[in-house]
Amino acid sequence: MLAEIITIGDEILIGQIIDTNSAWMAQELNAVGIRIKQISSVSDDREHILKALDEAQQRADIILITGGLGPTKDDITKKTLAGYFGVDMRLDEEALANVTRIFAKYNRPLLEVNRQQAMVPANCEVLNNHNGTAPGMWFNHNGKVLVSMPGVPHEMMYMMEQQVIPKLKETFTLPVIIHKTLLTVGEGESFLAERIADIEDSLPPYIKLAYLPKLGQVRLRLSSYGDDRYLLQAELDGFATQLTQRLGNIVAADEDIALEKAIMNRLEERGETISIAESCTGGYLSHLFTQHAGSSATFLGGAVSYSNQLKESILGVNPATIEQFGAVSEQTATEMVQGALKQFKSTYAISITGIAGPTGGTDAKPVGTVWIGVAGNGEMVVRKFQFGNKRRQNIERSAITALGMLNTLLAAK
Amino acid sequence: MLAEIITIGDEILIGQIIDTNSAWMAQELNAVGIRIKQISSVSDDREHILKALDEAQQRADIILITGGLGPTKDDITKKTLAGYFGVDMRLDEEALANVTRIFAKYNRPLLEVNRQQAMVPANCEVLNNHNGTAPGMWFNHNGKVLVSMPGVPHEMMYMMEQQVIPKLKETFTLPVIIHKTLLTVGEGESFLAERIADIEDSLPPYIKLAYLPKLGQVRLRLSSYGDDRYLLQAELDGFATQLTQRLGNIVAADEDIALEKAIMNRLEERGETISIAESCTGGYLSHLFTQHAGSSATFLGGAVSYSNQLKESILGVNPATIEQFGAVSEQTATEMVQGALKQFKSTYAISITGIAGPTGGTDAKPVGTVWIGVAGNGEMVVRKFQFGNKRRQNIERSAITALGMLNTLLAAK
Repeated sequence: MLAEIITIGDEILIGQIIDTNSAWMAQELNAVGIRIKQISSVSDDREHILKALDEAQQRADIILITGGLGPTKDDITKKTLAGYFGVDMRLDEEALANVTRIFAKYNRPLLEVNRQQAMVPANCEVLNNHNGTAPGMWFNHNGKVLVSMPGVPHEMMYMMEQQVIPKLKETFTLPVIIHKTLLTVGEGESFLAERIADIEDSLPPYIKLAYLPKLGQVRLRLSSYGDDRYLLQAELDGFATQLTQRLGNIVAADEDIALEKAIMNRLEERGETISIAESCTGGYLSHLFTQHAGSSATFLGGAVSYSNQLKESILGVNPATIEQFGAVSEQTATEMVQGALKQFKSTYAISITGIAGPTGGTDAKPVGTVWIGVAGNGEMVVRKFQFGNKRRQNIERSAITALGMLNTLLAAK
Repeated sequence: MLAEIITIGDEILIGQIIDTNSAWMAQELNAVGIRIKQISSVSDDREHILKALDEAQQRADIILITGGLGPTKDDITKKTLAGYFGVDMRLDEEALANVTRIFAKYNRPLLEVNRQQAMVPANCEVLNNHNGTAPGMWFNHNGKVLVSMPGVPHEMMYMMEQQVIPKLKETFTLPVIIHKTLLTVGEGESFLAERIADIEDSLPPYIKLAYLPKLGQVRLRLSSYGDDRYLLQAELDGFATQLTQRLGNIVAADEDIALEKAIMNRLEERGETISIAESCTGGYLSHLFTQHAGSSATFLGGAVSYSNQLKESILGVNPATIEQFGAVSEQTATEMVQGALKQFKSTYAISITGIAGPTGGTDAKPVGTVWIGVAGNGEMVVRKFQFGNKRRQNIERSAITALGMLNTLLAAK
């Protein structure tokens, strides 16, 4: 079953907002066996919208539209849809009651532009919007389904979860699609592909393997399409096990989660903790950990020891070490990671000190030179890396590399 | 001048990644007078790519493609482009040298799949990729331009900035568009609009004012369209000065920069410094500062004092204070900001302590309760905020709110 997503509105086309709706919708639809054939962002323009609808209905059975429904949009989307289906507009009493309720709640006068929000094409079934004034609209047309939803993310999400997905399940017989993702760290896409080529070749035609690389990590996603969920799941798990056994320690997680979350899960199982002493990453690595709910169970905190003085006062790095070897050195990284273990009393610690750039490099230590230390449970590894000359990339790479090193240290335990 | 963006790859269609590239590209293109007509995301499928190219070239003069160039993608994009233009593939020596250089740098063997990355359609001009192995490709065809770029954001961005935008400027006669942005903090969009209504009304038809609100900040962007760059610039600067004088202290910067960068600029002018004591934001606020080049001139560092023990050991918060009032309290926020000033010896400091959620709330202190302190030069402000129940939003809002408070404190000096 194929669907298309059309987003309407200039905000996306001028780059003012990033279209996060479509990715979320795609995930939800994939989970129920509906594949997205194309995502298109078009302007608030009648002809352009009609063209996009025409193109989409040639490829897909389900067309999901978001956006173009705000009170200042001159109702272009709704009028265009009415024209597309050759019907008039009608006032929907339930939608009007919803708009009236919302304006009453905030003690605002109901203006004519707001009342217009309850006008819909005559052939639609209204999807009530519990979180806003613009109603959703469901159209059945020549065996196909077209749904128009507001572009405000939480309004759209609630409408999708509560109304659209259940109705799609009722309307169509959907296949079973099961995904299984392995998170691997520390080996490139092409190298991985060689190591598992025979397993990949042995996959039946209804199981696909995708390589999804991102900054030192590659996600291996197995997707299985069919009718019998139980059989598909068993077969998928079998291949996942084969891949995991083949790849061993470089598999950080057998689910689609972030590397730092996989590390925290492992630490939490063992009742262990982590702290950070980061300089050139400037808080980014700590943020990676703490963006996840429940991180306080394992993440104790850390120091953003940007200045040398903070390296000394918080982490107990010896001033003589910095003077002799420099802040970006094996010795300083070593004292930083040891200092974190001692001061923050965590099971494991990470230290990062480097030159993120774009300035601050020297011949001996050019921009991109980064020392990373990981330590805990009597083990310590301190390594030097030479990244590039782009600041944000150096920050990201340093953090991800440190996570990879810690993952390796943990896997060996 | 109209352009279309086509992103190729199943990653976007299954919702695995959010298409951030297109919004960035749209902004860059808008800035040089190129409007985006449509953005389409299509699958790694020959027929589908051909259809998308056909549709796009009917609407636009410039087609920008990202994605579908990875070593395991079976070169579908490149082969499809060769088919579209009716040409053979050729080995590009410069692209091969680039791939070889990158593999040599990382001491990895050059596999056949990697060598294939240097094969390109015979009619293209190669855009060298300084940050990755997949070359960009520039095609001139029937007076139109088609550009294929890798989908990895930093590779695409660098290629756009260094090569594609300059070449588009050479190829087409683009209108002069000048933007001037004022960053305002602490007042809502509609309130701002009232205060500057008369200035906005006095703008000539070729100068537009846009309100770009984002998390407690509103950017006011003046855009001027015409032929005479010198005159346009002078006129734009005049209106910007009027707006700045009218709005006074709420203008944090008269250029399009991040709030934390505006704050660091101001501190640097005065020879002052900043440090951070952050709990619930977990490193995010420090990261906001340190993502910017040159931040070490003013940013000394800070503590990610996630655990109570770290609040005490690094920041010197009195254990009795935490015991009596709790970690999320006015008293703890006060001792944290004072501790940062004392321990880190900065001119100004920020403290944040709160409950980011989704769990950890109580009746008295529900999820979203955050105390923020800013202090320095003999002044201190500590305030309580009640944000929502979404973790990542609470982290972001806390950080931005803290920056707004510090900006106000600095503006009063």
